[in-house]
Amino acid sequence: MTRSTRQFALGAFLMQTGHHIAGWRHPDAQADAGSNFRHYVELARLAEAAKFDAIFLADSSGVRSTHLSSLARTARSDFFDPVTLLAALAAVTERIGLIATVSTSFHEPYNVARRFATLDQISGGRAGWNLVTSSSATEAQNFNRETLPDHTERYERAAEFHDVVLGLWDSWEDDSFVRDKESGIYFDADKLHVLKHRGKHFQVRGPLNVNRSPQGRPVVVQAGASEDGRALAARTAEVIFVAHQTFDEAKAFYADIKGRLPAYGRDPDDVKIMPGIFPVVGRTQAEAEEKFEALQSRVDPVVGVALLSTVIGGVDLSGYDVDGPIPELPETNGPKSRQHLLVELARRDRLTIRQLYQRIAGARGHQQVVGTSASIADQLQQWFEEGGADGFNIMAPWFPGGLEEFIQLVLPELRRRGLFRTDYIGRTLREHLGLERPAHARAVRA
Amino acid sequence: MTRSTRQFALGAFLMQTGHHIAGWRHPDAQADAGSNFRHYVELARLAEAAKFDAIFLADSSGVRSTHLSSLARTARSDFFDPVTLLAALAAVTERIGLIATVSTSFHEPYNVARRFATLDQISGGRAGWNLVTSSSATEAQNFNRETLPDHTERYERAAEFHDVVLGLWDSWEDDSFVRDKESGIYFDADKLHVLKHRGKHFQVRGPLNVNRSPQGRPVVVQAGASEDGRALAARTAEVIFVAHQTFDEAKAFYADIKGRLPAYGRDPDDVKIMPGIFPVVGRTQAEAEEKFEALQSRVDPVVGVALLSTVIGGVDLSGYDVDGPIPELPETNGPKSRQHLLVELARRDRLTIRQLYQRIAGARGHQQVVGTSASIADQLQQWFEEGGADGFNIMAPWFPGGLEEFIQLVLPELRRRGLFRTDYIGRTLREHLGLERPAHARAVRA
Repeated sequence: MTRSTRQFALGAFLMQTGHHIAGWRHPDAQADAGSNFRHYVELARLAEAAKFDAIFLADSSGVRSTHLSSLARTARSDFFDPVTLLAALAAVTERIGLIATVSTSFHEPYNVARRFATLDQISGGRAGWNLVTSSSATEAQNFNRETLPDHTERYERAAEFHDVVLGLWDSWEDDSFVRDKESGIYFDADKLHVLKHRGKHFQVRGPLNVNRSPQGRPVVVQAGASEDGRALAARTAEVIFVAHQTFDEAKAFYADIKGRLPAYGRDPDDVKIMPGIFPVVGRTQAEAEEKFEALQSRVDPVVGVALLSTVIGGVDLSGYDVDGPIPELPETNGPKSRQHLLVELARRDRLTIRQLYQRIAGARGHQQVVGTSASIADQLQQWFEEGGADGFNIMAPWFPGGLEEFIQLVLPELRRRGLFRTDYIGRTLREHLGLERPAHARAVRA
Repeated sequence: MTRSTRQFALGAFLMQTGHHIAGWRHPDAQADAGSNFRHYVELARLAEAAKFDAIFLADSSGVRSTHLSSLARTARSDFFDPVTLLAALAAVTERIGLIATVSTSFHEPYNVARRFATLDQISGGRAGWNLVTSSSATEAQNFNRETLPDHTERYERAAEFHDVVLGLWDSWEDDSFVRDKESGIYFDADKLHVLKHRGKHFQVRGPLNVNRSPQGRPVVVQAGASEDGRALAARTAEVIFVAHQTFDEAKAFYADIKGRLPAYGRDPDDVKIMPGIFPVVGRTQAEAEEKFEALQSRVDPVVGVALLSTVIGGVDLSGYDVDGPIPELPETNGPKSRQHLLVELARRDRLTIRQLYQRIAGARGHQQVVGTSASIADQLQQWFEEGGADGFNIMAPWFPGGLEEFIQLVLPELRRRGLFRTDYIGRTLREHLGLERPAHARAVRA
């Protein structure tokens, strides 16, 4: 049993003003975070001083301008392109990992391979790519389409996209560039590998015009929980970010993914599973609940009702009394399981519309922990030690205060228990996460 | 006559190890520049301390791996994605402009608009986009194509691409984001503008998910000299980088572009024309020529012959004696005017193959100035005062030394003559260049 040396991986999931939908209205929140680079410098340095493995950025290739009156009351319309932002943050940090989301739906693999290879070079081996497929028609409409391709086709494209990117990342062997001024030989032509990919979705000749990554290649992260998503992750992901509501869900997902790995010749340690955690920390339980209630009370009913309408599958609830019960709902084409669970919850607990939207306003499906440093540490420790997680992605309700509180209150408790590092040991994101540096494909074949 | 207050714009055109094809073999050159972020930090700070308007990065979406033995002897295969690199440099500089090339051929306008808007936010208004079309099949083959679309179609796409990007940059008015915590209003919905573009090449709904640029919008730069290129530039460019060999060429181009502007309702000052200058500086003329000769002698014949073969239109010269005459050439489909000019030059001056490739090894068609600070300043002053240029893009033969020598020797002479600033006055790239901050399209219409 090596439990004493096994430690958490921790990501700081940064999102403009905060993960709670009303986080921007918190008195201490940086309300202009989405347009404020200095704010991100502060957060990145804060997370690095606390020795987080990485900062993580989500992405969307658009603005959901369909519910305009609701949108105008949330801080979700102005944000930075994540790779561009992380490149700037790379220049003002030294050790922390830098993980950006880029969709396979609206980009070209050559460009994505280049940008992450560049980020990895600039940061000295700290880049990670969160590979996603896009799921909103609003985004598709910014890219010459009316609607999205269906789920299966999106995942098929994503899988081929991944393989092209990894192929391009192996264009050069580690010691290709000799740069001998005397002989005039700049690179060893035998160590250049031209991909010549011809697949269903992509034809990409290569080679990539960026040197091989300091960490072999950037870390590949994924977040899909569907069957297609799990299959792709089991073959290709090195880190999985995932949303769970309960320990049982987390444990089942963890066992499922780790169980799929041998089929791809992979070991359980080759993939780190990191559920999202939405923490509200107090010095007492009452203080934590009071803080949470203060956030919840700031959810504008227009925003809450629109959010709920979207989550339950596009049914418009704006005509109903916000303090009345959920009406009977017609069958829809939306994500049925989530709708079903929510409506069942509302019936069982006799929730009003307001109470129901408050349930989803913060953690967006992730585990919400409202408590003291000890009770939050207990919960993380259980998930970690009992087969639910290899680490966590911390989703602060508002920034910078929500992250500061987690660092000041919860991290010392985790460290006392030996669950989280007190300093960095390695220099690259792979080293932080305990992932091996991959050998060049040619070296593997030889 | 306001000549005394009119001053140069100066760009520092950074290119890995240097603009001379053998620059990387210079004893002081940073041979690993293409994979060395710290090198770029040093160059950016050097150019900023010298008060250059901007640093400028070219780009290629591929590696020309067709002449492998030649390619392996040049420093042209490993470089950084330019926007990603400039974002990192934005974080460690304060005032200098940041101009990156991104092709309209292999990207999507929504992504390009986002990345430059983000760079502009991060840098506090210092971003510029050099809009180009790609001209190599090697690049096309990294993006699902065998060959490029023809010249006219590429420019048609570029023009529409430009209009979409500018439309997206006006998604938000300057004061859209009110972020009032009390009322819960994050933005003023009346100040959000959805583009809904439907054109021949693109359908892009918008809005952009980045706030309006600190400088209204990033500066649009172009480099095309063809008829299609000039027409697009006259309508859309704010800066034009261009290659000329002689003052007469420069003057004719300058007059042509400035003369086209009124047709688009634009003033001569709305477009800054900046030819590329390849300087080799010595304390005496003899020293400058000696330095240049030392660079020329380092051109590997394999590289020189391959370069010449490409430039004269794809005719393979590798079987001929490098110290013998240029052979009779068949008609080709390559760029005939350049081939014709070069062959005529070789015949007139009775040049050998080696002598001819040395003529094109450095400045790649740009003006080559080999001399003292006084003679170089004389030449720049003439171009500037006699209608050939509004400024120059300085293409150092090798880095960092070639740029350092220009700064140490030529800049003081230009300053003595009142031709170049001694300090920054403004904070944005537009302010450096003397370009007005564009009002929002809606404000213009109102």
